[in-house]
Amino acid sequence: MIKGHNLIGLTESNEGKEFLQSFSPVTQSKLPEQFAVATSEEVNKAVDKASAAFVVYKGKTAEERAVFLETVAEEIMALGDELIQRAMLETGLPEARLMGERGRTTGQLKLFADVLREGSWVEAVIDTALPERKPLPRSDLRKMLMPIGPIAVFGASNFPFAFSTAGGDTASALAGGNTVIVKAHDSHLGTNELVATAINNAVKKCNMPDGVFSTVIGEGPVTGIQLVKHEGIKAVGFTGSYNAGMAIFRAAVNDRKTPIPVFAEMSSINPVLLLPEKLRQDENVAAQVSASITLGAGQFCTNPGLLFLIEDEAADKFTKKLAEVIGASPAGIMLNPNICRSYYKGREVIAKQKGVNILFEGEDACANYKASAFLTRVSAADFISNPDLQNEVFGPSSLIVACKDKHELLQALQCLHGQLTATILANPNELNDFADCIDMLSGKVGRVVYNGVPTGVEVSHAMVHGGPFPATTNANSTSVGADAIKRFVRPLCLQDCPEQFLPEALKNSNRLNIMRKINGQYTKESL
Amino acid sequence: MIKGHNLIGLTESNEGKEFLQSFSPVTQSKLPEQFAVATSEEVNKAVDKASAAFVVYKGKTAEERAVFLETVAEEIMALGDELIQRAMLETGLPEARLMGERGRTTGQLKLFADVLREGSWVEAVIDTALPERKPLPRSDLRKMLMPIGPIAVFGASNFPFAFSTAGGDTASALAGGNTVIVKAHDSHLGTNELVATAINNAVKKCNMPDGVFSTVIGEGPVTGIQLVKHEGIKAVGFTGSYNAGMAIFRAAVNDRKTPIPVFAEMSSINPVLLLPEKLRQDENVAAQVSASITLGAGQFCTNPGLLFLIEDEAADKFTKKLAEVIGASPAGIMLNPNICRSYYKGREVIAKQKGVNILFEGEDACANYKASAFLTRVSAADFISNPDLQNEVFGPSSLIVACKDKHELLQALQCLHGQLTATILANPNELNDFADCIDMLSGKVGRVVYNGVPTGVEVSHAMVHGGPFPATTNANSTSVGADAIKRFVRPLCLQDCPEQFLPEALKNSNRLNIMRKINGQYTKESL
Repeated sequence: MIKGHNLIGLTESNEGKEFLQSFSPVTQSKLPEQFAVATSEEVNKAVDKASAAFVVYKGKTAEERAVFLETVAEEIMALGDELIQRAMLETGLPEARLMGERGRTTGQLKLFADVLREGSWVEAVIDTALPERKPLPRSDLRKMLMPIGPIAVFGASNFPFAFSTAGGDTASALAGGNTVIVKAHDSHLGTNELVATAINNAVKKCNMPDGVFSTVIGEGPVTGIQLVKHEGIKAVGFTGSYNAGMAIFRAAVNDRKTPIPVFAEMSSINPVLLLPEKLRQDENVAAQVSASITLGAGQFCTNPGLLFLIEDEAADKFTKKLAEVIGASPAGIMLNPNICRSYYKGREVIAKQKGVNILFEGEDACANYKASAFLTRVSAADFISNPDLQNEVFGPSSLIVACKDKHELLQALQCLHGQLTATILANPNELNDFADCIDMLSGKVGRVVYNGVPTGVEVSHAMVHGGPFPATTNANSTSVGADAIKRFVRPLCLQDCPEQFLPEALKNSNRLNIMRKINGQYTKESL
Repeated sequence: MIKGHNLIGLTESNEGKEFLQSFSPVTQSKLPEQFAVATSEEVNKAVDKASAAFVVYKGKTAEERAVFLETVAEEIMALGDELIQRAMLETGLPEARLMGERGRTTGQLKLFADVLREGSWVEAVIDTALPERKPLPRSDLRKMLMPIGPIAVFGASNFPFAFSTAGGDTASALAGGNTVIVKAHDSHLGTNELVATAINNAVKKCNMPDGVFSTVIGEGPVTGIQLVKHEGIKAVGFTGSYNAGMAIFRAAVNDRKTPIPVFAEMSSINPVLLLPEKLRQDENVAAQVSASITLGAGQFCTNPGLLFLIEDEAADKFTKKLAEVIGASPAGIMLNPNICRSYYKGREVIAKQKGVNILFEGEDACANYKASAFLTRVSAADFISNPDLQNEVFGPSSLIVACKDKHELLQALQCLHGQLTATILANPNELNDFADCIDMLSGKVGRVVYNGVPTGVEVSHAMVHGGPFPATTNANSTSVGADAIKRFVRPLCLQDCPEQFLPEALKNSNRLNIMRKINGQYTKESL
């Protein structure tokens, strides 16, 4: 049963006099449950608890943390159909998608459990003492990655499980030994409560300290920013819009005594490079691209919003076909009224820009919170002179950039802002001819997809879900995959620390059997 | 012969009408050479050249970059005594120190050459395709660290070689495959020109692209900030004062279209924890601490500026002895007039704070640009209530914080701002008793030194020269040691990239013989 409270550690708390309700795009009405907005005192209490719990939690072994994460996964599964039904109601996402996303979320928790058990992620480095070295001896130096403290996590609208309460930010922060406070996303407050309760069940079962996890309810600009500004918070994980991400980023730098890192994944339109031979020889490209554009009503950070091609007969044929296929795709239900309104507003703005031709414009279904597809075309010259064409339109919209030749294509690519992904659809022989274009794209993105689609982000070791600004505020990080844990840690060096006081990972004996760098060489040997 | 020009790539350039001169604290007068301040156009030209050169330079093999770095080291040595003499004149640092620092600098270049040849630093990660996986197949995913582009480096006053023109920032940025523009420090413009010329000799000998290195002359707030704001610059390396570092950090976030990372190493007062048993049993502690405080006229980022002890007889004895020893140390010549004036001003400010007792105050030798020692004492209660006592006084000054008991010690440590180092002087049996204090300190610093002194920063694999704000603007980094290279790179993931287009580090065959993570396991095996 949904109670509508904040969870300040293990304590159910609703001291506030203001309330929020989730809106269902399915029933097209507010859901009945009232969620108490966290008071300023409640937020402070959550941070205090997270700070106190951190001192205990960071001392837990990797195995203890791994079991904890696995227990969170089990408790989420134990919520059963109630969770799926509530998320469907709050997000309008279909059942199959949500069941898949739940699997992704528990898989993510288990991946971090694996990473913890393997153990090498701490990057243990040892330089042994050189007492006889002239002119000066060398001390014994050992370093490893250490957790940093309470992390503020912002739930994302478009992934109620995988990028929200127990999503990648929370999982990686907890895996790294940090405590977490989640600012629930207004769109799925009930889903948040269910998952948060599952996490707290795991906290109790695993004997983790009260305060290792909290969730607070409230508006981003108030409750969210209060969290970000709190000196007890040591870093922020965020997935969402450019404006919200930048507000957090700037507050973290400008409005705190001690600036903190913000890992915000924000705005990306994911260019696709459609090379001439490929378009000539592969008739399936239009269907493949269309499916990626309209998947999930286009509500993915990796949605392909820009299609670069060189004008020729095959490109014309592709363009016509894409307009046809996309025109036949049904309007999809959107996550919430704001996103839906922004989508249609974004379409309007694009349509007004100089030189933009509309190739397909699905009817405005905003009244039913549905997004129909939108396909436009612009010349490379107009694209190059107008950076506003690179503003993300979150939904099933894509803009074809038509280039006269390879030279103009390279110029257009040079103007691109930072992106999460770039996709190359090409015949193998074209990869050489367009090497400079691919090199240019690679310098602007976190992931290059060859002959696939950008939607679908694998949770694995080699994934990079990140990229240069404005895709993220920190290009040297990923919010998906094993290395997401590296965001919420920092290196600590111990100089001449007596063996018995060294952390296990840095002791002479390598009992954890992890890969270490000893005097510049990688080894699993003991010292 | 010193010419007084900027080096815009390989081109000597002095288009400006303004000039700077270095001031010699040795001759106590301006040196005759006129250095042309870079015009705005010259700065832009340097960035343009660096951007163009980056496209070529990032394609150089690890071996080519390693040879380039080694050649830079050789060319610096080939400058011979001229370099040492010029640096002595410009900085007032003694010959032996500068020869040592030169060795450290060339050693640093060679360390990065070793890191490049060993090759594993690129963090190659491979997840092989799982075409049969249900419900969805997994793509082949491979990632590694890639260079990011032109880096702006700010020369530091206190290390004319090791943290300046060819210092750690430049060496690590070049090692990572980036191009570099150095804003010369006003205090040692001649030294900068000599070293810059050596670098450019190496550029020519190694056939590196024109523009891989440039140096520009000018004031930080003008020329420096112009560089930081230039959209062509992709990251900044800085070592210096809090105010200058924060100006750069804020400009990089607030005054650019695309914010960039700033790795600023700024302000640290390096607490030392003097435990009771140790003080009782080891009579050498006072001499050891005094030597570290007064080393190089206290002009080290790791200078121990705070000494925590618990009041008892041994602590009193130590305090008296420290005052004596420090009182006997000669005043040292300072780097430049500004630093000297700031030092004496900082002393005055400290002396005025509530509850501060002066234990030793060397005579004011500012007129001769010399710094005499300054030792003060304050109660923990006064320390806790006054954050201004944590402002860095750059020079041979230290403040004893006297605590009534362990409880008060812990409270005082809790108030500490972020630091580069913490030092524990303790008998082995005390480490257990004070574990909570050491844990508290460890959470606030980049390096913990056991029974040593914080001055003296080893250039090796396990070093961390970094720490939480305000010690740096990025606690997840080090500016000294092998991992300094990680600041100027970012991960790029290639999905289903055909084997022949993969970078060498990610190909099936592991020809570079590097350590890679394949499907979650570390191995040097080929695929």
